Amino acid sequence: MNIGIIGPGAIGLLFYFFLSRKVKDLILLDKDKRRALLLRNKGLTVVKNSKSYKINVNITAQPQELEDRELFLICVKSYDTLEVAKTIKSISRKNKDYFVLSLQNGLGNLEVLSEILGEEKVLGGVTNMGSTLLSPGVIKFAGEGKTIIGSLKKKTVPVLREIRSVFNSCDIPTSITSDLEGAIWSKLLINIAINPLTSILRVKNGELLNNPHSSLLMQMVLNEAHRITKRKRIKLLYNDPQTKLEAVCRATSENISSMLQDILRGKKTEIDYLNGAIYKLGESLKIPTPLNFIFFKLVKSLEETSLKRVDSFQDEKL
Amino acid sequence: MNIGIIGPGAIGLLFYFFLSRKVKDLILLDKDKRRALLLRNKGLTVVKNSKSYKINVNITAQPQELEDRELFLICVKSYDTLEVAKTIKSISRKNKDYFVLSLQNGLGNLEVLSEILGEEKVLGGVTNMGSTLLSPGVIKFAGEGKTIIGSLKKKTVPVLREIRSVFNSCDIPTSITSDLEGAIWSKLLINIAINPLTSILRVKNGELLNNPHSSLLMQMVLNEAHRITKRKRIKLLYNDPQTKLEAVCRATSENISSMLQDILRGKKTEIDYLNGAIYKLGESLKIPTPLNFIFFKLVKSLEETSLKRVDSFQDEKL
Repeated sequence: MNIGIIGPGAIGLLFYFFLSRKVKDLILLDKDKRRALLLRNKGLTVVKNSKSYKINVNITAQPQELEDRELFLICVKSYDTLEVAKTIKSISRKNKDYFVLSLQNGLGNLEVLSEILGEEKVLGGVTNMGSTLLSPGVIKFAGEGKTIIGSLKKKTVPVLREIRSVFNSCDIPTSITSDLEGAIWSKLLINIAINPLTSILRVKNGELLNNPHSSLLMQMVLNEAHRITKRKRIKLLYNDPQTKLEAVCRATSENISSMLQDILRGKKTEIDYLNGAIYKLGESLKIPTPLNFIFFKLVKSLEETSLKRVDSFQDEKL
Repeated sequence: MNIGIIGPGAIGLLFYFFLSRKVKDLILLDKDKRRALLLRNKGLTVVKNSKSYKINVNITAQPQELEDRELFLICVKSYDTLEVAKTIKSISRKNKDYFVLSLQNGLGNLEVLSEILGEEKVLGGVTNMGSTLLSPGVIKFAGEGKTIIGSLKKKTVPVLREIRSVFNSCDIPTSITSDLEGAIWSKLLINIAINPLTSILRVKNGELLNNPHSSLLMQMVLNEAHRITKRKRIKLLYNDPQTKLEAVCRATSENISSMLQDILRGKKTEIDYLNGAIYKLGESLKIPTPLNFIFFKLVKSLEETSLKRVDSFQDEKL
């Protein structure tokens, strides 16, 4: 199976690192030419427990070089999904035998990919492999976690078995679900509580549990979305979302969430596809989601004001 | 008229500076002995337009030295009002002829003072004199503004005229209102929008207007409180709160709000007496105030997490 990974972020690079163990024909696409050149020259470095591992990366900025792929792994931010879908459509005219597998966070990615490429081409998944981008081409492997893959049609197609086999052989523990939507929402509910709150308060994940005020806000924002899953009869992978949320906060207590990293770097976040999507769904279902709306708008405000941030109060010179 | 000012913050020091022009018998009370000694030794410095003015301060940490005061100006943070009220009660046993005038922000200060000292002793006011505490004993005079004083009983008692006369003679433009509650709420509605949002986003006042997301949040948090003023038949000093809010943001665009200063310094804020008070009133009146509740809880969370703040994302050493 030849694989093309699209997006050189934390997850794209981590999957490149693991897949390179067995997948001989592996290529990474980065639309940023300068960064692609940098990564080709200096390679990929993975840091784990203060040790670091370095490998060469077969990387390109030319989508055409991916036209023969059997599998595209989509690892870009959600706001780039549409562009990536169009790119794949344009290069895959000759090759009809391909699949795309989105490992992205948030809602709406599979829908965008399906609309452009056709639902039969689209697979999705959630991964709990922990990865933090430290600088271009350098990631920290923050810990092993399960990857769950499936298709929107709720049937296990043979390609899923093939992908599972490849992933597992490369030390990416992977299973197949017949309920992809449930898996996506199970991760989403945790992300909509941790990501915006860590960004607004500028704290590590574990800090959210340490006082009654932020832990109440976490509970409330999660409850709003939990009501939506009940109404939509989505089956979560855990029984009690609050208990799960606390467990994730504790297990990742020293992590700086990806959204907080984006805010601190002055980058765009995925808030539209997390709390923004929950708010819009809530509106259409007439389920009130004031917390999700306000977190959505606060993070949008943080994005907009990043260059004007006041980080300390300096005594003025006399 | 001899006057005691309680609280050496931005407003207490600014009023000391102006009142010292004509009031011969003026004393400042600071419960912090070390800071009081520092201010006695190094004096008070007021910076205005890059010029600075320095005067000596008659300051004490001993409440007994204020027992003969005819007027106490209350300039402490709202969470210290109860303690100040008890202090005044304990030192004013011999002197029955005194008044207290609260120039504090937020709701509830006059009620606390009335409960301890009796309503007939209590005067209140709002001031738009601009002052920023740069360091202990050093303030920036950010611009002249009106001071409005009145009593809870909605009648102009002779002492209000006397205070107005003293203040005006000291270049503190002052008028008397027969509707103190209206004046307090008129300032409150602006503060509950600007203070928490500047603190959460960490921006100067003017920045809030510069994007659709934060300006929408300002509108919404103000509207919730505006509904409360209508229900309570409180008459505001302006017709359109939104227009007034925008005007204040523009006029103070380069200011760092007092709440943001507190957050950046890791200090307690007055959020309980601003959005916290609005939220509680909303609950009792069954007027929904989700924005006020969430801003209240977010600022409480910011207070609690100040020592754990992540201000930048450092690339980890390899």
